[in-house]
Amino acid sequence: MSYHAGRHFLQIPGPSNVPDRVLRAIDQPTIDHRGPDFAVLGKAVLSGMQRLFQTSHPVVIYPASGTGAWEAALVNTLSPGDTVLMYETGQFATLWQHLAKRIGLVPEFISSNWRHGADPTAIAQRLSADVEHRIKAVCVVHSETSTGACSPIAAVRQAISSTGHPALLLVDVVSSLGSIDYQHEAWGVDVSIASSQKGLMLPAGLSFNALSPKALAASETAGLTRSYWSWAEMLGPNKNGYFPFTPSTNLLYGLREALHMLLEEEGLPQVFARHARLAAATRAAVQAWGLELCCEIPEHYSNVVTAVRMPAGHSEVALRKIILERFNMSLGSGLGKLSDTVFRIGHVGDFNDLSLMGTLAGVEMGLSLAQVPHRAGGVAAAMTVLSQAG
Amino acid sequence: MSYHAGRHFLQIPGPSNVPDRVLRAIDQPTIDHRGPDFAVLGKAVLSGMQRLFQTSHPVVIYPASGTGAWEAALVNTLSPGDTVLMYETGQFATLWQHLAKRIGLVPEFISSNWRHGADPTAIAQRLSADVEHRIKAVCVVHSETSTGACSPIAAVRQAISSTGHPALLLVDVVSSLGSIDYQHEAWGVDVSIASSQKGLMLPAGLSFNALSPKALAASETAGLTRSYWSWAEMLGPNKNGYFPFTPSTNLLYGLREALHMLLEEEGLPQVFARHARLAAATRAAVQAWGLELCCEIPEHYSNVVTAVRMPAGHSEVALRKIILERFNMSLGSGLGKLSDTVFRIGHVGDFNDLSLMGTLAGVEMGLSLAQVPHRAGGVAAAMTVLSQAG
Repeated sequence: MSYHAGRHFLQIPGPSNVPDRVLRAIDQPTIDHRGPDFAVLGKAVLSGMQRLFQTSHPVVIYPASGTGAWEAALVNTLSPGDTVLMYETGQFATLWQHLAKRIGLVPEFISSNWRHGADPTAIAQRLSADVEHRIKAVCVVHSETSTGACSPIAAVRQAISSTGHPALLLVDVVSSLGSIDYQHEAWGVDVSIASSQKGLMLPAGLSFNALSPKALAASETAGLTRSYWSWAEMLGPNKNGYFPFTPSTNLLYGLREALHMLLEEEGLPQVFARHARLAAATRAAVQAWGLELCCEIPEHYSNVVTAVRMPAGHSEVALRKIILERFNMSLGSGLGKLSDTVFRIGHVGDFNDLSLMGTLAGVEMGLSLAQVPHRAGGVAAAMTVLSQAG
Repeated sequence: MSYHAGRHFLQIPGPSNVPDRVLRAIDQPTIDHRGPDFAVLGKAVLSGMQRLFQTSHPVVIYPASGTGAWEAALVNTLSPGDTVLMYETGQFATLWQHLAKRIGLVPEFISSNWRHGADPTAIAQRLSADVEHRIKAVCVVHSETSTGACSPIAAVRQAISSTGHPALLLVDVVSSLGSIDYQHEAWGVDVSIASSQKGLMLPAGLSFNALSPKALAASETAGLTRSYWSWAEMLGPNKNGYFPFTPSTNLLYGLREALHMLLEEEGLPQVFARHARLAAATRAAVQAWGLELCCEIPEHYSNVVTAVRMPAGHSEVALRKIILERFNMSLGSGLGKLSDTVFRIGHVGDFNDLSLMGTLAGVEMGLSLAQVPHRAGGVAAAMTVLSQAG
């Protein structure tokens, strides 16, 4: 193994960089998850997660990655053969739809060109046509990590409500929670799905469901088989700070530390403002380079990831290879039908102005070295944004 | 405490950023320093330090910071009242001279304007005039951390030899060892003084003397009092991998890891080339800004630190304050008679291209925010250098 000096720039859109403080918190002896000390930890992370989801209702924590929490949201609320309306925002919406099929649901997929977030009007139209209320849930990805488009969740909720349709609203906030403002309760979401490796600044391995009273009621009659993912099994022990089966105790140490940093030290409004500023600087760089964003609607720009379209005939795979080998930086690849046509700059989690400047300098130098047609000046444009915003 | 997101940019010219791998190596249980396992560690770090100093002669390791190793070099080789010829390259040469006075030596100080390294001709002239050989040692700082000037040590050695003067040559390589090519044995240095917190990428707490046979011979008759610093006490136990008094075992774990990274993984030629490239990019930025380097002689530019003169009437203290508060980056202050007239950019140790770009972007944005007269384009100039150099 050859040593690459200095820090690797991990600028994929998650897993994100884990702060040293969080690594140190994880790096402590495991305690008995049935013993008296554990309850303090359990209660702290469960209540902290409620604050992060901006909800007074229960949050469930799984020792699992985000895909598990996708499954949990469906199996706790739905029955075999139920129709679910899903919106094709990009690759992650597509994968969630595949999962729904595999567990015996019948997804209806509203197709899109992967260049914007979900359209509330299209959802309302489909629900209005569903006079028999065969659709039991609407599934939307908040920040679609594959495209850099963010769906307007509050507007989706209003659209659903305007039709009087009783469908549940299930939202994937895997890449947005803790980085982009998200209000589970105020926005009327029934199940929110999140995981640990993005805005929460942790390694992958924890995932979350935030619930609504309506979702809890649905879980009482939902017919899909569940055990590991069962909310009912979780919520009893959770009341006292415990879990029904072995929790990831060491990751929960890290979660407690990360929640303290986000909620008590930096503060959520400051966290959201920081991501907005970093994203604006990134987009200013892309614009100055003369390259095109994947997301076509400015109101839908995600503040955690920027997907950039390659000029025709140029390979993002080749670009990322040069940047990794020459500058020790990992960028996100094009996923699914965007394969080799977009690259993605992650600016999620524990990240700041000067690390972004290193990132954008690496992209700009890489574009030159890979002979991708572009204008210089992206780095300078980002500096202008970062110098202005106070 | 408010959390500052992302990594702090520690761009003082040492202590430098400690790689995670080195922190993890330190973070292991302490072992018995008289037990059988310790000898393996002791021998590994002693032989590794010989390779780093590029010498086949002994290296002594102190549980002490660099100031201790300055003192050790003097008390092991000199006697009360001895004259030593010291060269005023900057603040650190000045501090070493103060130390020499305090322990009973009589330093002669060749004064300078702190804008270049040591002049071999001036040293030779002084030695030639010393027909009685009252001067027992010549003391020179290799990379003067306060000014960013690097003295030509091989040329200093040749100048001394050309006079036939028997003075010892003592060289401070605190900020250069492991970052700038330095050949203790080939260059004929008698004692080299180093410490752990710069190119060695460790916390402060270890320091080093590399010896020559002539220095060892001098130590047999040197009259200054010594116990903690005594080479004789060290060299016996060192032969078997042990130390005469309690060593910093955990820092030695880190030293073993750092030596492996420098010597086995990256390789010294690559380490030196990396620092040269980063320094050239930094100087290109300073030139583009239209600011002046402290060091006036290009051949003397240091590859580990760049000291930049402030335009008249502008405060480096105010500039660094803005950069710290706004961009979470620490830069070096002006020391001694350069107080408030230069700031220093450290690029020593575990550091790479994109972290340098973050650093230079922070300086350029800081210059604008502090309203320091300069031209934009420093960041762009550095990118040109880093894109060219292969």
